[in-house]
Amino acid sequence: MHPFDAAVALESVGEGTYAGRTSPSYNNMVGPFGGITAASFVRAIELHPDCQGTPVSLTVNFAGPVAEGDFEISARPVRTNRSNQHWYLELTQNGVVATTATAVFGSRRETWDNIEATVPDVPSPADTNQGGLPDAIAWAQNYEMRFVAGALSDQESADSTETLWIRDTPPRPMDFAALTSLSDVFYPRIFQRLGKYVPAGTISLTTHYFATPEDLEQHSDGYVLGTARARRFHQGYFDQTAELWTEGGILLATSHQMVYYKV
Amino acid sequence: MHPFDAAVALESVGEGTYAGRTSPSYNNMVGPFGGITAASFVRAIELHPDCQGTPVSLTVNFAGPVAEGDFEISARPVRTNRSNQHWYLELTQNGVVATTATAVFGSRRETWDNIEATVPDVPSPADTNQGGLPDAIAWAQNYEMRFVAGALSDQESADSTETLWIRDTPPRPMDFAALTSLSDVFYPRIFQRLGKYVPAGTISLTTHYFATPEDLEQHSDGYVLGTARARRFHQGYFDQTAELWTEGGILLATSHQMVYYKV
Repeated sequence: MHPFDAAVALESVGEGTYAGRTSPSYNNMVGPFGGITAASFVRAIELHPDCQGTPVSLTVNFAGPVAEGDFEISARPVRTNRSNQHWYLELTQNGVVATTATAVFGSRRETWDNIEATVPDVPSPADTNQGGLPDAIAWAQNYEMRFVAGALSDQESADSTETLWIRDTPPRPMDFAALTSLSDVFYPRIFQRLGKYVPAGTISLTTHYFATPEDLEQHSDGYVLGTARARRFHQGYFDQTAELWTEGGILLATSHQMVYYKV
Repeated sequence: MHPFDAAVALESVGEGTYAGRTSPSYNNMVGPFGGITAASFVRAIELHPDCQGTPVSLTVNFAGPVAEGDFEISARPVRTNRSNQHWYLELTQNGVVATTATAVFGSRRETWDNIEATVPDVPSPADTNQGGLPDAIAWAQNYEMRFVAGALSDQESADSTETLWIRDTPPRPMDFAALTSLSDVFYPRIFQRLGKYVPAGTISLTTHYFATPEDLEQHSDGYVLGTARARRFHQGYFDQTAELWTEGGILLATSHQMVYYKV
């Protein structure tokens, strides 16, 4: 089993209730990587017998620390329409809510179609040196990272843009859980601006999905081009917006987060 | 009373439960303007006796149509921490969920601060002609709109960018409810691309707040510069990301939505 699948594995333990366990290989500096928690919410919905469609939007609010060990996810379909479905989810440990989420799943159909955003003009993965994040960041060791811009550094930067080629290592065919996790792989933009670590943590993560199941099947285990930047750092919160592209120039998803920081 | 305040007025009818009524003057083509619904959620939290801090992030999922008439909002503080608070809310009509939301409120403090995004280079409000949306769009009549780019038109456009100066008419001092409403004032980007109306509706709206209460007090009833664009239109869903700036070049908030469309 791929470590990612082990990390997002859930067991049904009641109506809309799923038991999971944090996976040390997807830990962040403190507690699990937010992307793996977000991915676990998607997996919970996918396992729910009433699930219809695939992800359109997911918002995960990191309400408190997730301790290493067991957790439960409750997933409730709040409303099901003909073409979309709305969910509310909570991750609890010993009855205490650590994370909440809402999700919209939907069905898709052919219609007028256009990619308006511009894919960053970058060298191919083969022409980009392999990099990574320090060993202390366990989750990052499950990703092959090739930085085009914004590799972790001790230099201040006026530009918060991080752009990298990324894929699972070992490679793994893309699915919605994995795409969700990728939407949170960008280290906090404040580190890049200041050239140093400061206390920072995602408080709210929204992922918007363009990819259909067919898009993901076609992408398979290829590289994803991720790019992220911040707009404003203000009184303890900054944002970062990210785009996730295929090597062929298809925009799979975007993500938008608010991050707590302290300098 | 300003029509906006009438539209977001709520009455406490039980623990964390608030009764409201849709306001015809903030109707959209069908049902209430999404921005006013989003603003009502913010108002519900502000009215809650346990409310701490001011908005950091709000995600509103439009699960079904809101009929004209009475509604109830339930607001539950899921978790309260020292510096932030996490909410889950539902808007119901006759016991049926029409809209859900999660919110993060937080306290702010002085720290390292930077606006990295660039304010659009545009003429002043005084040098921009007054425009607007058709009379059929009731809510838009409560806003003074001066379009710099992307005024509603019957011409196709390769660029989905809408940029406008906007403020309440009559003018009204800004608060978080009003800022929330502004985060949804951009008409569906698909109309601009295709130069025509097609069925379209926001399915999920996330607003990220940078503004502090002091920022809003300083801004008062000044013009806001709003700019929005889409990245991709695909199989029935497109996104739009917006920025809301003060005339002095302060980024007050951003918003990110997924919109259903049919061509």
